[in-house]
Amino acid sequence: MNTFGRLFRFTSFGESHGPGIGVVVDGCPGGLTLAEADLQPWLDRRRPGSGPHVTARVEPDRARILSGVHEGRTTGAPIAVWVENVGQRSADYARLADVYRPGHADWTWERKYTHRDPRGGGRTSARETVARVAAGAVARRVLAALLPEAAMPVTVVAGVTRIGPVAADPARWSDNFIACNPCHTPDPEALAAMEAHLATIKAEGSSTGGVVEIRARGVPPGWGEPLYDRLDARLAAACMGVNAVKGVEIGDGFAAASMRGEEHNDALLPPETPGGAPVFASNHAGGILGGISTGEEVVVRCAVKPTPSVALEQRSVDREGVGVALRVGGRHDPCVAIRAAPVLEAMVVCVLADFALLAQAAPR
Amino acid sequence: MNTFGRLFRFTSFGESHGPGIGVVVDGCPGGLTLAEADLQPWLDRRRPGSGPHVTARVEPDRARILSGVHEGRTTGAPIAVWVENVGQRSADYARLADVYRPGHADWTWERKYTHRDPRGGGRTSARETVARVAAGAVARRVLAALLPEAAMPVTVVAGVTRIGPVAADPARWSDNFIACNPCHTPDPEALAAMEAHLATIKAEGSSTGGVVEIRARGVPPGWGEPLYDRLDARLAAACMGVNAVKGVEIGDGFAAASMRGEEHNDALLPPETPGGAPVFASNHAGGILGGISTGEEVVVRCAVKPTPSVALEQRSVDREGVGVALRVGGRHDPCVAIRAAPVLEAMVVCVLADFALLAQAAPR
Amino acid sequence: MNTFGRLFRFTSFGESHGPGIGVVVDGCPGGLTLAEADLQPWLDRRRPGSGPHVTARVEPDRARILSGVHEGRTTGAPIAVWVENVGQRSADYARLADVYRPGHADWTWERKYTHRDPRGGGRTSARETVARVAAGAVARRVLAALLPEAAMPVTVVAGVTRIGPVAADPARWSDNFIACNPCHTPDPEALAAMEAHLATIKAEGSSTGGVVEIRARGVPPGWGEPLYDRLDARLAAACMGVNAVKGVEIGDGFAAASMRGEEHNDALLPPETPGGAPVFASNHAGGILGGISTGEEVVVRCAVKPTPSVALEQRSVDREGVGVALRVGGRHDPCVAIRAAPVLEAMVVCVLADFALLAQAAPR
Amino acid sequence: MNTFGRLFRFTSFGESHGPGIGVVVDGCPGGLTLAEADLQPWLDRRRPGSGPHVTARVEPDRARILSGVHEGRTTGAPIAVWVENVGQRSADYARLADVYRPGHADWTWERKYTHRDPRGGGRTSARETVARVAAGAVARRVLAALLPEAAMPVTVVAGVTRIGPVAADPARWSDNFIACNPCHTPDPEALAAMEAHLATIKAEGSSTGGVVEIRARGVPPGWGEPLYDRLDARLAAACMGVNAVKGVEIGDGFAAASMRGEEHNDALLPPETPGGAPVFASNHAGGILGGISTGEEVVVRCAVKPTPSVALEQRSVDREGVGVALRVGGRHDPCVAIRAAPVLEAMVVCVLADFALLAQAAPR
Repeated sequence: MNTFGRLFRFTSFGESHGPGIGVVVDGCPGGLTLAEADLQPWLDRRRPGSGPHVTARVEPDRARILSGVHEGRTTGAPIAVWVENVGQRSADYARLADVYRPGHADWTWERKYTHRDPRGGGRTSARETVARVAAGAVARRVLAALLPEAAMPVTVVAGVTRIGPVAADPARWSDNFIACNPCHTPDPEALAAMEAHLATIKAEGSSTGGVVEIRARGVPPGWGEPLYDRLDARLAAACMGVNAVKGVEIGDGFAAASMRGEEHNDALLPPETPGGAPVFASNHAGGILGGISTGEEVVVRCAVKPTPSVALEQRSVDREGVGVALRVGGRHDPCVAIRAAPVLEAMVVCVLADFALLAQAAPR
Repeated sequence: MNTFGRLFRFTSFGESHGPGIGVVVDGCPGGLTLAEADLQPWLDRRRPGSGPHVTARVEPDRARILSGVHEGRTTGAPIAVWVENVGQRSADYARLADVYRPGHADWTWERKYTHRDPRGGGRTSARETVARVAAGAVARRVLAALLPEAAMPVTVVAGVTRIGPVAADPARWSDNFIACNPCHTPDPEALAAMEAHLATIKAEGSSTGGVVEIRARGVPPGWGEPLYDRLDARLAAACMGVNAVKGVEIGDGFAAASMRGEEHNDALLPPETPGGAPVFASNHAGGILGGISTGEEVVVRCAVKPTPSVALEQRSVDREGVGVALRVGGRHDPCVAIRAAPVLEAMVVCVLADFALLAQAAPR
Repeated sequence: MNTFGRLFRFTSFGESHGPGIGVVVDGCPGGLTLAEADLQPWLDRRRPGSGPHVTARVEPDRARILSGVHEGRTTGAPIAVWVENVGQRSADYARLADVYRPGHADWTWERKYTHRDPRGGGRTSARETVARVAAGAVARRVLAALLPEAAMPVTVVAGVTRIGPVAADPARWSDNFIACNPCHTPDPEALAAMEAHLATIKAEGSSTGGVVEIRARGVPPGWGEPLYDRLDARLAAACMGVNAVKGVEIGDGFAAASMRGEEHNDALLPPETPGGAPVFASNHAGGILGGISTGEEVVVRCAVKPTPSVALEQRSVDREGVGVALRVGGRHDPCVAIRAAPVLEAMVVCVLADFALLAQAAPR
Repeated sequence: MNTFGRLFRFTSFGESHGPGIGVVVDGCPGGLTLAEADLQPWLDRRRPGSGPHVTARVEPDRARILSGVHEGRTTGAPIAVWVENVGQRSADYARLADVYRPGHADWTWERKYTHRDPRGGGRTSARETVARVAAGAVARRVLAALLPEAAMPVTVVAGVTRIGPVAADPARWSDNFIACNPCHTPDPEALAAMEAHLATIKAEGSSTGGVVEIRARGVPPGWGEPLYDRLDARLAAACMGVNAVKGVEIGDGFAAASMRGEEHNDALLPPETPGGAPVFASNHAGGILGGISTGEEVVVRCAVKPTPSVALEQRSVDREGVGVALRVGGRHDPCVAIRAAPVLEAMVVCVLADFALLAQAAPR
């Protein structure tokens, strides 16, 4: 289904080569200030064409609020955001209508629904993520409104920590650097090697995978519902549900499989102020224990597969089942992890807004 | 919340040291043969005490069906299964009532709910997984009934592919071997090293993490709902929601982050019979593209953290916030991945049964 | 929340005096033919201004499909329908911004959400029902596609059976007559008295309540889920959730409270063809027993309160809590039951489409 | 499905002639005092055999809490309640195994699920309502805990206001009288006529319908979610989902269909204290406007059909489709409205607890 979330939830619609992409955000409390200008920066960050390593298509992505806001404030009614598609070139895709691209959902979609919009992947296009980013922007307003007096506001930032063989060093993480480099990497020292690798890959008509790490700070302890609605479970679903993501881990993640208990456990230390919360000596858990937030930084890491559209020749079949040799032309990101970063960030923000509302439902 | 699934769904209840563990399975069609004997083998497999590397507690785990079955057949009414707790020793936990165990949900639960059952972790105990395994056994009946004429029945098998530093070789995977070795590993050649490592870890009062791989064969193409109810997203949530799991990946997973597009894409080959489905030349995707099953083997891999209860001394705090040095005694598995394997297997079966029902709702 | 349904579901957005009303329909199978022309007749029927007894506002209500349809067929993606608002006159409502209209949700909405769009009721306006009618038109396509070989297609028709003191005779029910009279009554002989009463009411600046009866024929036996997702429970929620509805009954409804068992029970008679379903000798149950459809006509009756906006003077208060004497001007239907009829019809169709999909999920 | 509610929700299981009836209540906050003694009085009130006009079966209905409570306080874990069935006489039903009782769900269930437990109606038996009443008792604790400082606690009381032709006068409503008369009527002056009618009906081997009115006082303004999750819509679903209910109305309900706008509208008067809420001059709306509570008494009225099991001869068919003349023996309530009253009361309490939690999720 095309709806995400429980109390804070959104429903998306639209295809890459239809009139536009829309999202209906439900569950936003009334009385919050909200304007199109609050959404636009996040859409701009997601937009391709802002750097050399993303596709050169021109997509202005203007957010238009269709409902739910009156005189600059939310009314509690559903907030619909519409982003018109401009500059699509369906002709690029005409010759793909009868062939299934490897690594894409072309065949599975057609098999499931019998009928498919082949233009740019239709509904399964990365273009749909516009809806997620717009919803994330609203979710940020909700988080800010719900925790007005928090010592530390909730901050969610996603960075690219690996592009193919080039890994960033997490110790050099800089929020500020992410926003101002074309690879969205948090590590200034990794940038040059990442750019060099992307240039090589692009020249070869190939593509590469990558890793996106999302860090959420300021999440108070107690968010998450045991047992089947755990914070980690919902984050996993949210991130795995983003196009091209093939793995999700929390905290030490897969590295924990090779660790010992005393090494992985985060020791609890006495609170800094009497009556306060205990202090965790480390954060191997990635801010979540038993599915519930601990108050430490929530750390999620996602594996993004290489862009399946490559200019190199691949084997596939057409609708008649005849084998074809296929080169997928057009403009494609050499590494979709870069554009996935703001999308994954938005999904994590939406999950947190949902749990923030749920946490209020049964206050201690 | 304590309910899992949509059309095939279950609700669990009970704590490790209360009277028992129960599960209510809803959505099972009527007319299926079902008896307690269909559930027992799966509970037996999950039960601790069946091998040297799991805890020695005696838990007979007798499944009793309380409702939903009349004269050996399901009636469409909810199927409640009750497993009485026997042999719990609450005394073991008495001294833990006022201290928070590192790596456990003790503090987060108490913070969230103000009141906590400290005996054996209460609701967050691994004992709750009895409910999941019982639900999984019912889900197997549903899958078998829904696909009666399938050329290949759905088979779901979970194996332990890593224990600390010792990795199994996936190429040596044997379903049959898993069931007859105490490590639940699919690789006969890895067993000796795994056992040796477990012996060392145990002797040292420590614990180790591991990896569980789940393989589902016979899943027909077309299961999974775009975009927020994708098969991979639901599998991720199901597995991440199991105690101690810190990472989930599909197919090549995190390895895909270092791969190239032409390397990761699974080429499509002409169908073997005219009008049939294309054949995938490889299965890097792990049987899922665009959130929808491809008909290939579904491959899920989960990182399991080391058992947090270790006999080695750890730092923690008590309820008053005073620092304590803690050794968690009692009987604990040196590697919970072993016992997690049948649980993860059951969760995958439940997800598949749910999607099987959903897939029927809108037939092609 | 602004989402209705489970497998067939829709999410609506938009306010009466914003840019338009939209609806996102999810769960529609792929491959069905669908065009804007399939939606328009239903919107036209709902539209005010088509007769003397509904408001004279000009609302062309052009349906535009924004997504989910490619080359005239559904793709399985969400179907968004957008209906632009034209001809709203916000000025009419300017003086109502600071006063609460009796019988309206003005005060409750403002109390709940702190901020309110006062223009024409904003989100709570009857204009929102455009979304429901559009969703209903898609639901009709789904029902037709799911039961292609049914001897009798599902037909859902709503008629106005009471306007104030004037009651229709159910024995004179004519589907065809409903569509061609301004009161949407099924009883040709009641029309004159209804029209006369409406004229009187209107001349007096007053309004009147009414009753809408919805009849669904061709519903196969077996739709509905016990116990909390019964067909009657879902129909009750769907209808009670329509503006101005204050009562819902199934079959004999409230009359059953004065009946005896042997009088209300519908006797079962032997099937007409060997091995067929038993025949019900009567239909006091209104086609539903134990929450499950019996195969008989499903009969739902809804009480619609009188339009709260009347030109007569009423007592109310303004935002400052000061008492005011209020006359609600503007163009208002003297009896909203007339316009509610196509809306209630659409809601019943949506409920049936949802249960049709659910029923397929667990086939016998 | 067998789950009711969203944030406060319960799942029931069990059949009338199986080992017992159970319910799992989820969403109850931690830290509330709760004991079996809190549940028992409500189960006792529901129990048949407590008066001359309900069946004489002996059903002690002892509530046993299986989970979710530790040392007398809730832990936030799901609360399972189990009530063993004692004194069922399956033999009474043996001869009904192959025949379909008119007015019952026998045929529809068997048609839907292919297999049916014929003993006492199995899952569709009124015995299942034990689960609802137990859930309602927990919901009362939640309401009390959530509104600890409310000037007026939430009070929900259901009374029988009609038994066949005998109607109570709502102006004589007495909460206290309901609990101490065998008809659960709120009107002391109606009791004698009700009892006389029941005696007649019983002597004739017949049964009668009735009306139950539920009044909820102390509901604060602002509960209910527009548009498809309205308080009135959820109340309608909750009540229509109770066995034998064929109609639900709010406030004036069906009477509103014959009223005029100025007559039905509840005028708003200036608040009694400066800055307070406006005062409603009347309560035709039954405490709900636009799906949101107004702060006035919530008034719900339900039509209950006559008990379908009557001793008089009825026509029906058996499994082979052969016509039979049937007398349903055994002990049956002459008017199920009496026993439905505490059940409907419990359902309304559960709906309110759910909305209370939802209302907290997005505080003003």
